[in-house]
Amino acid sequence: METPDGTAVGTERCDAARNRARLLEAARRLVSEYGAEHVTMEAVAKEAGVGKGTLFRRFGDREGLLCVLLDEAEADFREVCASGPPPLGPGAPAADRLTAFGWTLIDRIADVTDLGAALARQVRPRNRNASETGRAFHRHVSDLLWEAGVDTDSYVLAHALLAFTAFETADYLVRDRGVPADDLQATWADLVRLVTRPDGFLTVGG
Amino acid sequence: METPDGTAVGTERCDAARNRARLLEAARRLVSEYGAEHVTMEAVAKEAGVGKGTLFRRFGDREGLLCVLLDEAEADFREVCASGPPPLGPGAPAADRLTAFGWTLIDRIADVTDLGAALARQVRPRNRNASETGRAFHRHVSDLLWEAGVDTDSYVLAHALLAFTAFETADYLVRDRGVPADDLQATWADLVRLVTRPDGFLTVGG
Repeated sequence: METPDGTAVGTERCDAARNRARLLEAARRLVSEYGAEHVTMEAVAKEAGVGKGTLFRRFGDREGLLCVLLDEAEADFREVCASGPPPLGPGAPAADRLTAFGWTLIDRIADVTDLGAALARQVRPRNRNASETGRAFHRHVSDLLWEAGVDTDSYVLAHALLAFTAFETADYLVRDRGVPADDLQATWADLVRLVTRPDGFLTVGG
Repeated sequence: METPDGTAVGTERCDAARNRARLLEAARRLVSEYGAEHVTMEAVAKEAGVGKGTLFRRFGDREGLLCVLLDEAEADFREVCASGPPPLGPGAPAADRLTAFGWTLIDRIADVTDLGAALARQVRPRNRNASETGRAFHRHVSDLLWEAGVDTDSYVLAHALLAFTAFETADYLVRDRGVPADDLQATWADLVRLVTRPDGFLTVGG
């Protein structure tokens, strides 16, 4: 209930913020202790000492909660891509930055200790694509393709390239089929080289 | 129990085959009546008049059952790709066959009445990739890439290209982001053209 000076509303907002922080802190602890794949909403609510209803209201569902942790976990990597040293960050040619980006993603997918990858694996592709991280990765690849001067739809092409590095394909190849991560990285580099070469489309179309 | 002349074993095999046929027939009926996404193991067992235990023993789980229906549903398309008229079948250049294959897959993904696509959507990527259909699609693309003379790992490249046409990416773009299927097809054609051009890798690497 709002009072003339807004005290009650302020307190309510304060409680909400405190609950949210406690829930995220509890979720982080459980992820680090048991692994992202074993975290349940029940356990998070219990660990935080907050009602399960509040947890669901705050984050929608388990994937909503894990997406918040994912976006947190990926903040540093996104920062490095946006403004860190080359070749991931600015200062290298767009094609080199694209190659470095894919190589790093594939390295991280093959690394069982990578927190961001472990969290992202728990989120369905649709929600993963729509997360802040998914959209940032897509914008990054799309911008670099555009900067490299690809003469095609860089929005769709970025999705096409990123699909290859998604867990649904990369995990299948690395874990189920035993393909070395190096082979995925080599193919990523080949793809980038082909789609970003200056005469890429002109030679064929012209 | 086996008898000297094998009668009991023969009868047992016969019963097993009959049960399997009844279960598949029931599953087909339910898929056609209610849609693949609404078919449960409970309903299939009931419809077939066969115990649920038998159903699970026979097909492993719901995805195992749907994979059998998927491989059945895709038999005609696989046949067309392998030996139908060009450009899907033999008789056209490998690059044109690849383009036609991707275009048809994307058309089918965008078609809500397509049975194979509806079944495949119910199967997790890992099992879908490992199904007879998934392996046949990969072999087809891989063979055509090799035939087109790509100077790279055609096994991994085929997975990279197919990842773009997987539901996890194509459905997200078409259904969630409202990207026209035509745009996906145009990008598929661009990708195929780039990776199969005769001077593809030599110009850049040399």
